[in-house]
Amino acid sequence: MDQASGPLIYLDHNATTPLAPPVVEAMARVMREEFGNPSSPYSLGQRAMEMIENARNEVALVLGCDRSEVIFTSGGSESNNMVVKGLVDFARPQAFHAIVSAIEHPAILNPCIFLMEVGANVTILPVDSFGLVNPDDVRKAIRPETGLISIMLANNETGTLEPIQEIAAIAAEQGVPFHTDAAQAVAKIPLNVKQLGVDFLTVAGHKLYGPKGVGALFIKNGRQLTPLIHGGGQEKGNRSGTENTILIAGLGEACRVGRENLEQNLAAMTSMRDRLQALLFEAVADLVLNGHPDLRLPNTLNVSVPGVEGARILEGLPGIAASTGAACHDRSVKLSHVLAAMGVPPEVGMGALRFTVGRTNTMEQIEKAAWMIIRRIREMRR
Amino acid sequence: MDQASGPLIYLDHNATTPLAPPVVEAMARVMREEFGNPSSPYSLGQRAMEMIENARNEVALVLGCDRSEVIFTSGGSESNNMVVKGLVDFARPQAFHAIVSAIEHPAILNPCIFLMEVGANVTILPVDSFGLVNPDDVRKAIRPETGLISIMLANNETGTLEPIQEIAAIAAEQGVPFHTDAAQAVAKIPLNVKQLGVDFLTVAGHKLYGPKGVGALFIKNGRQLTPLIHGGGQEKGNRSGTENTILIAGLGEACRVGRENLEQNLAAMTSMRDRLQALLFEAVADLVLNGHPDLRLPNTLNVSVPGVEGARILEGLPGIAASTGAACHDRSVKLSHVLAAMGVPPEVGMGALRFTVGRTNTMEQIEKAAWMIIRRIREMRR
Repeated sequence: MDQASGPLIYLDHNATTPLAPPVVEAMARVMREEFGNPSSPYSLGQRAMEMIENARNEVALVLGCDRSEVIFTSGGSESNNMVVKGLVDFARPQAFHAIVSAIEHPAILNPCIFLMEVGANVTILPVDSFGLVNPDDVRKAIRPETGLISIMLANNETGTLEPIQEIAAIAAEQGVPFHTDAAQAVAKIPLNVKQLGVDFLTVAGHKLYGPKGVGALFIKNGRQLTPLIHGGGQEKGNRSGTENTILIAGLGEACRVGRENLEQNLAAMTSMRDRLQALLFEAVADLVLNGHPDLRLPNTLNVSVPGVEGARILEGLPGIAASTGAACHDRSVKLSHVLAAMGVPPEVGMGALRFTVGRTNTMEQIEKAAWMIIRRIREMRR
Repeated sequence: MDQASGPLIYLDHNATTPLAPPVVEAMARVMREEFGNPSSPYSLGQRAMEMIENARNEVALVLGCDRSEVIFTSGGSESNNMVVKGLVDFARPQAFHAIVSAIEHPAILNPCIFLMEVGANVTILPVDSFGLVNPDDVRKAIRPETGLISIMLANNETGTLEPIQEIAAIAAEQGVPFHTDAAQAVAKIPLNVKQLGVDFLTVAGHKLYGPKGVGALFIKNGRQLTPLIHGGGQEKGNRSGTENTILIAGLGEACRVGRENLEQNLAAMTSMRDRLQALLFEAVADLVLNGHPDLRLPNTLNVSVPGVEGARILEGLPGIAASTGAACHDRSVKLSHVLAAMGVPPEVGMGALRFTVGRTNTMEQIEKAAWMIIRRIREMRR
């Protein structure tokens, strides 16, 4: 097929991103030069520790916090698990109540299921047809024993942006710790943890052109968590284990690159995404947009082709990498929990395609991809 | 000081190891070529998944198990935490009992303290003056509710090798799951999980010339753990989070290199360590060996200079990197929990120095280091 003849057009940046070239450089430098244990008191160890602190500073700059508020983890999933499990007193989990939304990532929802299994209570809030959480629903769900509210900043499947500032204000007013999973938002949109008013925020390296296997957690000064990984007391006791020096250097550099080019990238993503959206909607009359048209990540387009299975569309497009649901757990075809929670009818949801543009895409690729997608849909419908 | 004039003589390989050159190559290749999400069904994702499965096979080969029994983690600390916390029913932790030794790594002992805080029971077994656990003590400590026995294979501070096969047989006989933290042993000594008879075994990448930030856990087929990190269901549901592709490739290569050169490295380590030991004992009449003289890792030498503080000896030796205790948690000077458990008197333990040789050392370095250490001790005692 001629679709496969050119190089792959990668439109799956919410699944994972390629490494930014300066990130590769930063990691290669650590691989060549540094190998000390950051806990060792001699110079080799201390140089490794300095490098980690520089990276921590870069994460802090992109989040708008103090570097004492940044903890390195093995990725977004660990950061999320740290928060969901780290506020519970496991001597009496029955006394704990958490509030989350139905469209959270599995790294929030599955830890919540674990909490429920051991006797804690979890309220899972609905979303509207755009995938938005209603702040009033959060307010009403709060109980005296509520110990955590966790609502994601941007949904990975639809890109819908939640009203975090409003929800965080409600949480603060009621004295409940508030966490947001910002894995999809950091370095894509302007973001400041102080303005948002959150207590905890999750960062995932490989969603922002950094490496897989590293992430961070913002912990507001004064907030405390029981560690998920106990041991040697690294990361001020919050996260034990010899520091992941190579990938931490990569994450720091990814944050620097993301921060310095944020406005420019945001504009480029928006124009490419909007162009793809316009071309597809122009050609496919009954196309449905999943997610909010405006309150949305600049790089994310989730559309449904009613009556046609999304996976079958992509099977015929080997030249394009895209998703039907969330790629992180996409090994079996079923209506995603996000689209289901939004009330998308199964016959529409099954046809969902997620195209997520990124820094390496060009407008030429976008137009070529649109043409390929449209031709494929027409072929299938013929 | 002239000690600082040459390049650093690194004798702290139990703290961390430099990357083996083929490991750097393997990681650089992934950094350049691969970036797909291993969960994505298209070729970019599937190539990443193949690479991970090749690495898994290498870990399985070095451990002597099936690759279905290997789970990748973020390091030894995570692997240890997974086991200590993963067998407990947190709906009733009071019903759980674990047995560990007093000389375990903090990544075993501190999760045990957490268990005790939530109501579980933990027996911490003593060791003899060599740092050996008595298998009879294990047998006597087993109760009907014992859910885990965890004894390390080789101690990080003294190198003492525990009677794992014997203890594992007792555990099996009583139907209790048995874990060994083999972070210091893998690729240093011949090791086979089937011969050892263990149910779980911890591997740490950066102790075997692989990268920091990655490790593995052997989970015997049929054994189950509640995940520490819940989420997208990667690693067959045992450990969620997008796979750490770069470092996993590095760990796989480190295992291959370690396995293929095991006998040769073992002989080289032994002869360098024994030479260092002979030179020091010849020159310092009252030197004390900490740990077992024979049942010991081939690369580890822990000695005490009575009446002289170990940290002060090393302060005057900027040309040598070594440890006074365990480097992972060495920021404050105090008698290590390992030496304390062995009954080493404080005035002797304070003078403990750990020299751990490695693949990049030469006999010339060892002899030079011995001379520098001896001169320093003589200066201090003058």
